[in-house]
Order: sequence, then structure tokens, then C-alpha cells
Amino acid sequence: MTEFFKNVSKVQFEGTTSNNPLAFRHYDPERVILGKTMKEHLRFAACYWHNFRWPGSDVFGEGTFEHAWLTAGNEMEMAKVKADAAFEFFSKLNVPYYCFHDTDVAPEGSNLKEYVNNFAQMIDILERKQDETGLKLLWGTANAFSNARYMNGAATNPNPEVFAYAATQIFNAMNATQRLGGENYVLWGGREGYETLLNTDLRQEREQLGRLMQMVVEHKHKIGFKGAILIEPKPQEPTKHQYDYDTATVYGFLKQFGLENEIKVNIEANHATLAGHSFHHEVATATSLGLFGSIDANRGDAQLGWDTDQFPNSVEENSLVMYEILKAGGFTTGGFNFDARVRRPSVDLEDLFHGHIGGMDVMALSLERAAAMIENDVLGQHVAKRYAGWNSELGKNIINGDLSLASLADHALTNDIQPKPVSGKQERLENIVTGFLYK
Amino acid sequence: MTEFFKNVSKVQFEGTTSNNPLAFRHYDPERVILGKTMKEHLRFAACYWHNFRWPGSDVFGEGTFEHAWLTAGNEMEMAKVKADAAFEFFSKLNVPYYCFHDTDVAPEGSNLKEYVNNFAQMIDILERKQDETGLKLLWGTANAFSNARYMNGAATNPNPEVFAYAATQIFNAMNATQRLGGENYVLWGGREGYETLLNTDLRQEREQLGRLMQMVVEHKHKIGFKGAILIEPKPQEPTKHQYDYDTATVYGFLKQFGLENEIKVNIEANHATLAGHSFHHEVATATSLGLFGSIDANRGDAQLGWDTDQFPNSVEENSLVMYEILKAGGFTTGGFNFDARVRRPSVDLEDLFHGHIGGMDVMALSLERAAAMIENDVLGQHVAKRYAGWNSELGKNIINGDLSLASLADHALTNDIQPKPVSGKQERLENIVTGFLYK
Amino acid sequence: MTEFFKNVSKVQFEGTTSNNPLAFRHYDPERVILGKTMKEHLRFAACYWHNFRWPGSDVFGEGTFEHAWLTAGNEMEMAKVKADAAFEFFSKLNVPYYCFHDTDVAPEGSNLKEYVNNFAQMIDILERKQDETGLKLLWGTANAFSNARYMNGAATNPNPEVFAYAATQIFNAMNATQRLGGENYVLWGGREGYETLLNTDLRQEREQLGRLMQMVVEHKHKIGFKGAILIEPKPQEPTKHQYDYDTATVYGFLKQFGLENEIKVNIEANHATLAGHSFHHEVATATSLGLFGSIDANRGDAQLGWDTDQFPNSVEENSLVMYEILKAGGFTTGGFNFDARVRRPSVDLEDLFHGHIGGMDVMALSLERAAAMIENDVLGQHVAKRYAGWNSELGKNIINGDLSLASLADHALTNDIQPKPVSGKQERLENIVTGFLYK
Amino acid sequence: MTEFFKNVSKVQFEGTTSNNPLAFRHYDPERVILGKTMKEHLRFAACYWHNFRWPGSDVFGEGTFEHAWLTAGNEMEMAKVKADAAFEFFSKLNVPYYCFHDTDVAPEGSNLKEYVNNFAQMIDILERKQDETGLKLLWGTANAFSNARYMNGAATNPNPEVFAYAATQIFNAMNATQRLGGENYVLWGGREGYETLLNTDLRQEREQLGRLMQMVVEHKHKIGFKGAILIEPKPQEPTKHQYDYDTATVYGFLKQFGLENEIKVNIEANHATLAGHSFHHEVATATSLGLFGSIDANRGDAQLGWDTDQFPNSVEENSLVMYEILKAGGFTTGGFNFDARVRRPSVDLEDLFHGHIGGMDVMALSLERAAAMIENDVLGQHVAKRYAGWNSELGKNIINGDLSLASLADHALTNDIQPKPVSGKQERLENIVTGFLYK
Repeated sequence: MTEFFKNVSKVQFEGTTSNNPLAFRHYDPERVILGKTMKEHLRFAACYWHNFRWPGSDVFGEGTFEHAWLTAGNEMEMAKVKADAAFEFFSKLNVPYYCFHDTDVAPEGSNLKEYVNNFAQMIDILERKQDETGLKLLWGTANAFSNARYMNGAATNPNPEVFAYAATQIFNAMNATQRLGGENYVLWGGREGYETLLNTDLRQEREQLGRLMQMVVEHKHKIGFKGAILIEPKPQEPTKHQYDYDTATVYGFLKQFGLENEIKVNIEANHATLAGHSFHHEVATATSLGLFGSIDANRGDAQLGWDTDQFPNSVEENSLVMYEILKAGGFTTGGFNFDARVRRPSVDLEDLFHGHIGGMDVMALSLERAAAMIENDVLGQHVAKRYAGWNSELGKNIINGDLSLASLADHALTNDIQPKPVSGKQERLENIVTGFLYK
Repeated sequence: MTEFFKNVSKVQFEGTTSNNPLAFRHYDPERVILGKTMKEHLRFAACYWHNFRWPGSDVFGEGTFEHAWLTAGNEMEMAKVKADAAFEFFSKLNVPYYCFHDTDVAPEGSNLKEYVNNFAQMIDILERKQDETGLKLLWGTANAFSNARYMNGAATNPNPEVFAYAATQIFNAMNATQRLGGENYVLWGGREGYETLLNTDLRQEREQLGRLMQMVVEHKHKIGFKGAILIEPKPQEPTKHQYDYDTATVYGFLKQFGLENEIKVNIEANHATLAGHSFHHEVATATSLGLFGSIDANRGDAQLGWDTDQFPNSVEENSLVMYEILKAGGFTTGGFNFDARVRRPSVDLEDLFHGHIGGMDVMALSLERAAAMIENDVLGQHVAKRYAGWNSELGKNIINGDLSLASLADHALTNDIQPKPVSGKQERLENIVTGFLYK
Repeated sequence: MTEFFKNVSKVQFEGTTSNNPLAFRHYDPERVILGKTMKEHLRFAACYWHNFRWPGSDVFGEGTFEHAWLTAGNEMEMAKVKADAAFEFFSKLNVPYYCFHDTDVAPEGSNLKEYVNNFAQMIDILERKQDETGLKLLWGTANAFSNARYMNGAATNPNPEVFAYAATQIFNAMNATQRLGGENYVLWGGREGYETLLNTDLRQEREQLGRLMQMVVEHKHKIGFKGAILIEPKPQEPTKHQYDYDTATVYGFLKQFGLENEIKVNIEANHATLAGHSFHHEVATATSLGLFGSIDANRGDAQLGWDTDQFPNSVEENSLVMYEILKAGGFTTGGFNFDARVRRPSVDLEDLFHGHIGGMDVMALSLERAAAMIENDVLGQHVAKRYAGWNSELGKNIINGDLSLASLADHALTNDIQPKPVSGKQERLENIVTGFLYK
Repeated sequence: MTEFFKNVSKVQFEGTTSNNPLAFRHYDPERVILGKTMKEHLRFAACYWHNFRWPGSDVFGEGTFEHAWLTAGNEMEMAKVKADAAFEFFSKLNVPYYCFHDTDVAPEGSNLKEYVNNFAQMIDILERKQDETGLKLLWGTANAFSNARYMNGAATNPNPEVFAYAATQIFNAMNATQRLGGENYVLWGGREGYETLLNTDLRQEREQLGRLMQMVVEHKHKIGFKGAILIEPKPQEPTKHQYDYDTATVYGFLKQFGLENEIKVNIEANHATLAGHSFHHEVATATSLGLFGSIDANRGDAQLGWDTDQFPNSVEENSLVMYEILKAGGFTTGGFNFDARVRRPSVDLEDLFHGHIGGMDVMALSLERAAAMIENDVLGQHVAKRYAGWNSELGKNIINGDLSLASLADHALTNDIQPKPVSGKQERLENIVTGFLYK
């Protein structure tokens, strides 16, 4: 079998004294933190699409990569070459998991029958490769956004046949995920939205999408899939407006269709910022609503209004994200999937490793810093103390519903309450965080 | 009684041939469109705060206005002067409605007792003035964001006494609204959010806010208030992040606390754009979710990231908004309140009229254009035809739940479906809209 | 010869009573306004790239168009087919001008020799087609951004051979533009910027770009090209930051290299808004700096952070732009080129016409409204009166340099000046504009 | 004399093992790095306005601070109290420098004569306090934006008397800065811009502003001021658009008026991000143009569209900024002035210290990290190697002007050049930076 990454051997932890650019400086898979290994905490996955399907193109330019697996040729043959390259990469990268869309791993074919056959063949191959390498599937998904048929939506298409086509892909991708032992199944609605309100029936499209989600949940139970179903919020791009805008919007959607206990969110850093939120906000919102599922680890560019999908490189940002995740008990089925890609001019094969190694080290550092925040708990104690008044009689009576607006107003007036402003201590808390980050 | 606007008489419709800058060119209150007068459709309100409380200051500069009602002096005396000026203005402006916060019309006093007394006195005066002028109250509200005590939140404050203080204001403001025949009661949570996640318990604050909303709804029913309770979404400013971010977020919040049939939204144009949505989007989302209540009519500046609260001046934008409102049956209790202010350098008394007259003419033009779109219905027919497939057997079976993912996939495969992309006709539809706007 | 747009005949003015979607309602080429025909004022051009090269793809999806000229095949043969389709389209659209990049019209080939030969053959064909149809070239340009070789910049590439490659294309494209009677030559530096400051020498890249601009100007004079050289500002996309950020930035660049009298700007609406400016601002800035050249007519989406290149559809926005252009004397060599494309789901051949017809009608309406503002001149008079004080002795002495800071301070103190705030009348002026827009 | 900060003694370096929240953990003033002490490198200043003039108000709320120096009373008396408090604070904070606006330190009075007298008295006091404490003035400036007279601009006002008033303030503030040994004089044009283009003559206003700048430079030379004149770019807020938008815009402005060797820029982090740039970008642009002067150290909020003026707390961001400054030779007259304020709910006196201590530690850490990048120089070497081709014969001939477009095209064609894409190594370089930041 061809070796694609000849100059790279399996990436190992070498510590901060190493000068080897193809080693981890901070990610030490077996190092124990808060009772679990780094590997167990972080549950890293690399993805098929950015690394093995994207040719280095952008809206204004052709592909720049000359990687062997991108060569033109017989589609099924190339799918196998791609699988060889992908598993070599995942293995050498030393991640425990990978992720894929159905159409990343198998050619779509010219009709559904071909799609089903191609996909089935490739799932056999992936299964064998998982056995050989020990790699596991973090999640599978179906691509219901790239093909021209989805240009007006998949589940939200005005044509129910398009819904049916998407449903067929999802059916096959869910079954494949189940068979490959995938720990989650993800739904990203890149085309589930509108280009213009002038041709759109919002209520109708919402019903269609809600019904699809219900079908997915029903199918999960029918086949006994033990993993989580995850929606990945994104506000726009490619579509002008997407219905899964952000975590709070997804929550309302799930409540409307009675799915809030069945579906969780897969939060992507760059989607959070496109939606006008910090990544930290989206994760904290999800944990506070009981919706937290998994993470697409990447970063955007604060000056650019599109999904740049860069590798995470901020320990400052990710330590706070990691802190929220640890506070909420850590990942269960989820993990950190690098939905990130090297820049278009990063044409060397090694660049794929540099991007991921950097991201893994940044997340490992963030885990370590966040764990210190959990252990020391000065932040947690500050928050608990701040809200202590809600454990008083007044606080409890308000929350418990024992007081009406009238009786509470009466209480306030009778007691002539004069609540004093109390400092929020934001600057002091920020300094405490800096103290955890930089020793 | 002092006359404040000596150079202005009651503003009248004079049509497009008039050169009088203090006349309406398009807003003809008694003109009938789609079976109702313009006045009945538009239900215009002017507000107390921007016109009679704001001194023309901004973050970098002192007040610029030298209006008589802004002179320093005995607070209750000045509140009466302000009421005189306000009702003269509202009357001369020829709007049927006005809106206020409790602390716009009466001094806060140094404790709750003074607050209650001051407010009660001023409500007597407002009631008399309503009788004298025929003006009506579109909505009342309580200001639970300006006083220092609310700097860390009102309902979401870590101190339950602050919750109680806010509840007391809301209790009084709801009762006053009821007494003055107000048609809605509005809740805007300017400080209901966080400055930093480091000191915030999102789940706790959400519970507090939910409880307040429930109290408000319970009180409404208790006092037999027939108007609507409205939440006004805003994503941020003054607070870094506000829980009532946008309509979709408010929907999820209402569902969580079982209030989706009790509370609607008051949508502000400039809040929509700050949240990353078009004004049209927010209105269409609200009508599709059954949440549409009222409008704070204004506009933002596409290049500025704060609430500029300018007067609406785009017929292009507002015709589409008006179209959604008409499609949804028009306002019931709501209306167009000008939550808009003249620019800081607009120091002439007449400028207050120019701003409102411009806004009213723009909304009247928008109503006229939107009515034509409703009557002609080419847009509606296009949308109906576009989704016609969902009335087919396949479409119905999907929505009705008769098909599982498996049976739908089986259908698709068996029938070898090959749905063809159908043009969304966006450019053609946009041209049709332009055709309605410009004759 | 194949007819590509069989259902479309040459688009004609039919007025607002027409129901023909393939007719102009407002653009009446021979109608005279302010002493010139609409055709002479507006100088419309359609472009090659969006209409004949783009397949309807986006970052997340494949091409959706099945247009005959996009079929795979022999590259030179397809270039000829494309030219046939393009000239049929331009002619039927009834625009006087078109625009192209070198690589739109001819295949790049596998080396410079092939490039030069292919391009020369196609220029012969274009010349013949211009003769046959009467179409003229508004501007030509070279594509130095799509090929992988330009991924790190063209003129600003770290490798001078890439500079040389780009220079060769520009040399050929300038000569072709000259030969085809093009009225301008445009430079858009899509890759002239940086992806990361970590690998970038800003001073060096600026020098390289400056030298290229000088070469272009020298070559223009050498070959006696009478048209204008235009830089098209854009802040980012595809590159993270582009050196031609906006008009003010281009001005500084031109001053640095002594080119401010040699090069003007080609302003694109969507680039203006991506740079954080209104389109109106960019045009007004350019005219005030004497840099105004031409316009890429389109629009962005206020909620999206990338170049959506939609067709202009706001008369409100474009009337103000047109007003600035008319105030500055109208176009000389420039014109309105539609750098706009139909949405990806607009797959019908007619959609190409709908987009352009809508854009042309909007610009014609804008011209008509702006001409009324010029004729009436109430806005101009207001501005003149506002600054009248600068014609006073004090004003003149300040500007003329007769007063030092010390002598001016002495004057102010001696005279105890107390300048009174004067209303900016923004609301009144906005109402006046609305009065011009809507009758 | 009253002691205002009784619980705080002079802040000292105690290192990372200290638990004292009122000590420096990283800023060790006398520690030598790259041959200079931290104090000499960083040249910290605290400001008068945010700490001693701002009452904790925002657009939606009243002041929250109950600090003694904010008490109402006789204006000159309170100015003296404020000076006492300010110098106690600056001294205890252990910063070597401070900064002020004329109207921060002295009451404006009701006319220019009073202004001049009040200001003169307070300058006497400041001079004495500088002597007593050893504090130095980093820069002085005049506030020509808060008073109502400046609502339509200061130098760019339509009324030349307003220009004269501003000039008088600047005259006095420059003289005071000179007398107090200030090392720079700053001009920030908060109102030098427009609210609406409808009432604005861009060319005229630009001329006015250019003349003011020339007057300032002439006065500098006349009085022998040895410090630097600095313009502080900001894109908007309070004004809709400001002429000093960003560094590149200021460069063009300076070139237009022949001032590029006389004036430099004072870059503020939050102004950079409001202008759509990274802070790093603005500093790198300024050093590459020879315009770098000083820094207003703070940070914005990536989700908020206004100047939040928070304290810097990102070592990741500021290490790169510091790296640019060190590469350019470090500060000469400039320094890091904290144009930053505590959050409105940070009402404790100690919060003023927490904010600054955090900011100083972050900048000290950033200096240390950046110094390591300079010493190791792997980044610098990478850049040098990347552009090495420009030292080849071809590179030199292009830059030197020895090649025309024609001769260069001929060279390219003759040599059949085929430049190969070379990886930009962005991911690898980012990993290297992370390696410097986290040990």
C-alpha cells in the first residue's frame, strides 16, 4: 500500500523542550488530569472533508493542493485511495477518532441506487480500516447541501422529493454510523434556511424541518443507536439565513417539536462568532440548557465575515470553554472534532500535521489550565457567593412562586428596601483567570 | 398654560404638492386602504423618553438641547411641565397614541414610597390630559435599567431585593397602564443579561427572569388587563449579552416557562439589525411563530454597532415589513411606536416634528405599497405555487408522520427519484417588488 | 450559429404599464435627462465572468447551472461558444458595454506562450464581435488571483517570478484593451494583501505593488492608451487583508508612489460595505479627492460578511450615489458595470436577464430622482449656506494660513466668542430626499 | 490631605507566587529585558478621564460610582480634590506617566477667559504635584468634542468661530503640555467627521482639518516643543464617520497636507477593531509607514460595536503587538497609556487598581514573550528567507525600475517561467508563536 506521508511518523508527545515540529509539546495522551487521561478528556477527532476532499480552492481561486488523493480518475478507485490516505493520516496524527459525511467517503453516483451501493462498499472498507488501526468514529453525517438538488434546501425544500432524497441519505448515513460504532450522529442544515423571504414560507419550512428531526429520532430508537443526535447551529453561509442560527434558537425549535430531550448541539467556534456570540457563550448557553453535546474545534477571524475554519490557537479562549465543559461534567458521547483546515497556501503535506498538532496542543493546554480553575475553584466560589441571596427566604419565595407581583411589591414597600449596588468584580476575576493561564 | 411649540400648529395631510415641511405628504389619517383608515392600520405612537427626557447627550458629549422642559428645578414641577409639553407635542403631531416608562413621567424619589406617590400624582395628570386631548396610551412600561441599583440586572440581579424593587415598579406601571386604558404592557430587559460569564450563573438568572414573566402574566389576569404583554428583544447594549436576544430566542424562553400563549414580542428595527437580522426577518419570524405584537419603529445605521434609534426613512424596507403585518392580519393591540430620536445636533424644536413627520410619511407610503402587494397577490401566489408539492400525497404523508425514515428511503429508492433543481426566481421577485414601490 | 437565449428578444423600454418581465419599465436609453440620454449617463456594462464563467457553485456546493456554454470540452472551442453566448446576451440585454478578465475569454494554457496565443486568438474574435454588434468595451483586466500561482499574491508575491507572470498577463490585457477600444483598464488586487502578518513584510509588499502600478502607468503612456487606469478597492476576501482596502487607503497609496494624478478608483457597492462604509460614502470620498473613475454596480447583504454581488435594487441608496456622480459632472471614461450575479438557485436562462433588467431599471430610476435633486438644488443650497461662514474674513484667514494658532487664540479670547450650536437639520434633509424619491 | 485609597499602598512586584490581588505578578519595573528595564520599555501611563471624570454612566443608565471626587460642589474646589485623588492613585499604581484633556483637570467656565484662568491655575497645581510625586506627563490633549458647541465638529465645523474656539483650547493645552514636560501632544477628532453626507462638504471639511494640523505643527516648532504630535485614528463614535478612520487613512491625509514627517499616530486597540482591523494590523501598518507613535492600551469586545475601553487582558494579542514595537526599535516618545475603564458595575475603589494591575501584568508578560521572539528570531528569519528572491537580479531590477512592463513580459515569455506555489507555513508559524507564549 502506498505511503502518503513518508516524512512523518506517528506523532508523539515530546514536551516543551522538543524542537521537533512534528511532535506534541503539550498533548500527552496518557497524562492524567482530574482523574482521566488527556485522551479521555479531549476525545480528539480529525475530519475527512477538509483534509481529504477539499482541493485548496476558494470562491476566487482554483485548488492549490497537488495531493495524490485529489488526482482525477475512477471515482470508486479514488475513494479507496482517499481512504488509505485518510487512515494513514489519522493514525499518524494519533487521534482516537475521525468524522465523515457520506459523500466524503463514497461517490454519489448518478442515482440513489448507485449512491447506496458505493456507500455500502466504502463502509465495508472503513470498517476494516477501523479494525486495523483502532480508530473510532466520533460521528457520521450526510451531506445534504453540496449537490445542486439541495440548492433550495434539503428538508426545507419546496419539493418533497428533495426531502425524500435527503432522508434516504440520512437513513443510510445513520445506519452506517451505527454499524461503525459511531458515538454520535450530526445534522448540519447548511441549506435549511432561506435566500430571500420573498419566496419563502417560514412556517411551512419549519414544519418540514421539525418532521425530519422527529423521523431521525424515531429511527435512532428503532435501530437502537445508542449515540447522541446532534444539531450543529450556524447562522448563515451558505444560506442567507439558517434556521439553526445558534444554540438558543435551536432550543426553541426543539421545544416546539418536543425534541429537547432527544437532540443536543454540536457547537462550532466559528459558527458561534458568526452568530454574534463568543464561543464561550455558546458552550455556556448549551450547558445551562442541558443541550451540550460535542464541539467542532476551530476558530474564525474576528475581521472576516465567513467561516474561515482555522485551527484553534487561543488558549485564552479555549481554557474558558474547557472550564464550562469540565463544570458540566466533561464530554459524554461528544469530543473535539477539528472542523478546521489549513490555509489555501499551506500546500505542503506536513502542513496538515502542523495545523492539527497546534490545535491539539492548544486544547491540551486549555484542559490543563481549566482543570486548575476547577481544582482551585475560586471562580466557582465567587459565583456561588454572589447569588447566595437567592437562598434567603425572600429569594426562595420569589422563585418558588409563593409571592405574587402584588405581594412582593407590598413586601418591598413595607420594608422600604434600598438595595445597594455591589461590584461585579469583573476586572479582579479577569486577573484571576490570567493568573491561571500564565505562570 | 405655556405653549412650547409656538410655531407649529396641528400637523395635517396636505399631499405631495405641498411645500409645507410641517405637513404630511403621504399620511392621510382618514384615507381608507384595504377597508381600514390609515390611522387604524398604523396606530402611530410617539414616545416620552426620546422627546422629553433625553437632553441630546451621548457617551462623548453633554446635552445639546435647551428645551424648556429640560431645565433644572423642582422635580415634580418639572414633571408637570414635561407633561404639558409632551401632550402639546403629541396632539400637534396628530398621533393617536403615546408611550412612556414610569420614570419618564414621574421622579423616582429617594425611596419606593416617594416613587409610588410621585407616580400616582402624575398618572392622575396623564389621565386628565388623555381626556382633554383624546390621546390614548399604546403601552406603558417600567424603567428597570437606568438606576444604579439595576447595574447588575433587575429580575436577573444576584440580589433578590433588586428583583423586588423592579417588581414593585412593574406592579405600579402595570396598574397605571390598566387605569389609563393602555393597550399593551411592554417589558424590555436592558440589564437582563451579563457583562461577563465569569461572574454569571446563566441557569439561575434564566429562572429568575422566567419567574418574573410568570408573575407579570398572573398579575395581568388578576387585574383583568385586556391588553397584551410584550417582550422587546434586543441582543446587547447596554449589557454585553441580553437574554431576550431576538425573536427566536424569546420563543425558546417562552416555551421553557410555558408562556408562549401569554406573551408576544415588540420588535424594534434597530434591535433586529443589531442581532444580525433584517427587520423584515424579525417580523416574519414573529408572525410565523404566532408571536407578533407591536413595533418600535426606527432604523439603525448599517455601519454603526449601536442603537442609533433614527427615524425610519426607508420605504423599501418598511413596505416588506408592512406586507408581513398585513398578511398576518394587521395589528390587534399593537402599533407603530416611534422609538426614535432626532440626531444630537438637531437642536431646533421643529426638528422633533421633522423626524416624526418623515417617519409617519414613510410608514404611510409603505402601507400603501404593501396594500398593493396584498391586493395584487402575485407574490403570495408565487409562494403558494412554489410549495404546492406539499399538498401532494408524498408531501402530506411526510408531514402527517405516515412515513418513517426507512419507508421514505424505500420509496425514494424504489421510485428512483431524481428531483430537478427549480429556480428560486429571486431576481424576478425583487423586480416585482420594485414594480410595486416605484411607479 | 446557435441561439442560446431563444425565448428572449432584444430588451426594450415599455414603461411602467407593461407586464412584460423582459422589458425595461424605467430605463429608456434615448430619454434625455439633464441634457444627455439615459444611455450616455449610465454607460451600462455587463460582465463576462459572473454570467459566462461562474457555474453556480459556492463554497459549500457544486455548480447548479446547466448552461450550454459551461459544458466541458476542448477549451478553445468552449471559449468560442462562450463568446457567442456572451455577445448574444449583451446584445439582447441592450447594454452598450461589456467587461472581461483575460482568463474569462481565453484559456490560460499550460504556459505563457499558450496563454499569449489563446488570448490573441480570442481578442481577434472579440474584435470581430464588437464590430458586428456595436458593443464596446468599458474595461479590460487581467485575472491575477484565481490561479494557484497567485495564492501568495501577484505583485506582492514573495517570489519575483510570480510578479513577472502577473506583469505578463497585465501587459497582454492592457494591449488587448487598447486594441479593442476599451475606455478603462482596471486593477483589482484580490491576492494583494496578506493571510497572516506572521509571514509578511508589509513595507516590502507595498514597494512591490507600488512598482507594478508605476509600470502600468508608464506602459499606458508608452502605448498611448487614452483610457483611465483604475484601482478597485476591496478590504478583504479572498485575502484576509487587502492593501487596496478602501478609497481613502488607495489615496494614501497613490500619494506614496506619486500616482494620484494617474490612477482613479473603480468603486464597488459591495466592497464599500465590506469595508465598513456606505456606498454613498465611498463615491463621495472619491469625488472629493478627485479620484472618482467608475462603478461596479451591485449590492451586498447587510447581514452577510462576504461579497454577495447581488444586483442593485435600492433606488434609495443609488439615488444618492447618482447625485454625487452628477454633482461631480457625471462619468467620463467610467460607467456602471454590473459586477453582479444571479443567486445560485436562479438556474433559468431568463434569470440572467431578470437580474440585469432589475438593476438597469433601478439605476435609471435613481438617475431620474438624482437629476431632480440637481435641478431643484435645495440640498446643494442648504450645504452652501451651511458653510457660508468660511467665506467670512475669519474663515478665509484661517484657511489661507494668515492666522497662527496663537493669533487665532488671541482673536477668540479678545472677542470672547461664544459660538452657538446650529441644527444640522438632518431629519428635514432626509424628508426632502424622501420627497424626491416618492411622489 | 485626604487619603482616598486608604486600603491600598503603593503596588509592588511580588511575582507569581503572591496571592496579593494588589501586587504585580509579572510587571517588575526594574527587570532588564533586551537591555532596558520593563519600566523603560513599557512607559505606562494612567489617564485622568476614565478614572476621575467618568461617573459610571452609560447611554442607558446613570452613574454608579460614589467616589469622593465625583461629589457635586464648587467646580474649582472639586478640580483640586480630583487632582489630589488622581495623583494619589497614579502614585500608588506605580506608573511613571499620566495623561489628561484640558477639561478633565480644570472646569471649562462660562467663557474662554474663565477657561484660560481655570486651566492655568490647575496647571500650576499639576506642576507642583509632578514635582512632589515624580510623575511625568506622557501626553496632553484638548477636549474638543464634549461641549455642545462641538456637536457639528471642531476644526471641521461649518462655523469658523467653533474652529477658533477649538484652536484656543489646543493652544492652551499644547502650551501646558510643553510646560509640564509632556512627551507628546495628541489630537483625537471625535467630532471631526459627519453625521450625514446630506449636509456635509467633504472637501471643505478636509481642508479645515488639514489647516488645523498645519497650525499645530507650526506652533510646535514655534514654541520648541520637542515631543511628538500624534493623531489618534478612530472610525466612528461618537460621529457616524470620522476622517481619521484608521492608520492608512491618516497616512493619506498627512500626505495630502505635507505632514507625513511631522505627525505620527497614537493607536488604540479598540479603535483598530472598530475599524475592521486587528490591533496587530494597525501597529504593523504604522511601523511599516514610519508613523508609529504611541499606544492607547485597552481592548474592545469582539461582539460589541462600540468602544468598550476594557483593560487589555490578552497576552496572545499583545505579544504580537509588542513584537512589532520591539522590531521597530521600541517606543521613543510614546508609551502605553491605559485608555481603559472599569466596567460600570465595578464600583469599589480597588476595582480601579485591579483593572490597571491586570493590564500592566498582561503587557509585561507580552513584553517578555515578544522579547523572546526577538532574541530567538526564528520568525524574522522565516520572513527574510521568504522574500529572499527579491535580492536576486530579477527582483532588484523590478524594484529599481530597470524593467518596463514590456521588457518584464518579454523576460517571462522568453524564459517560459513557471513559478511554483510555495507554502506560506501559516500553521507552523502559529505553532511557533504558541511555543513562545506557553512554556
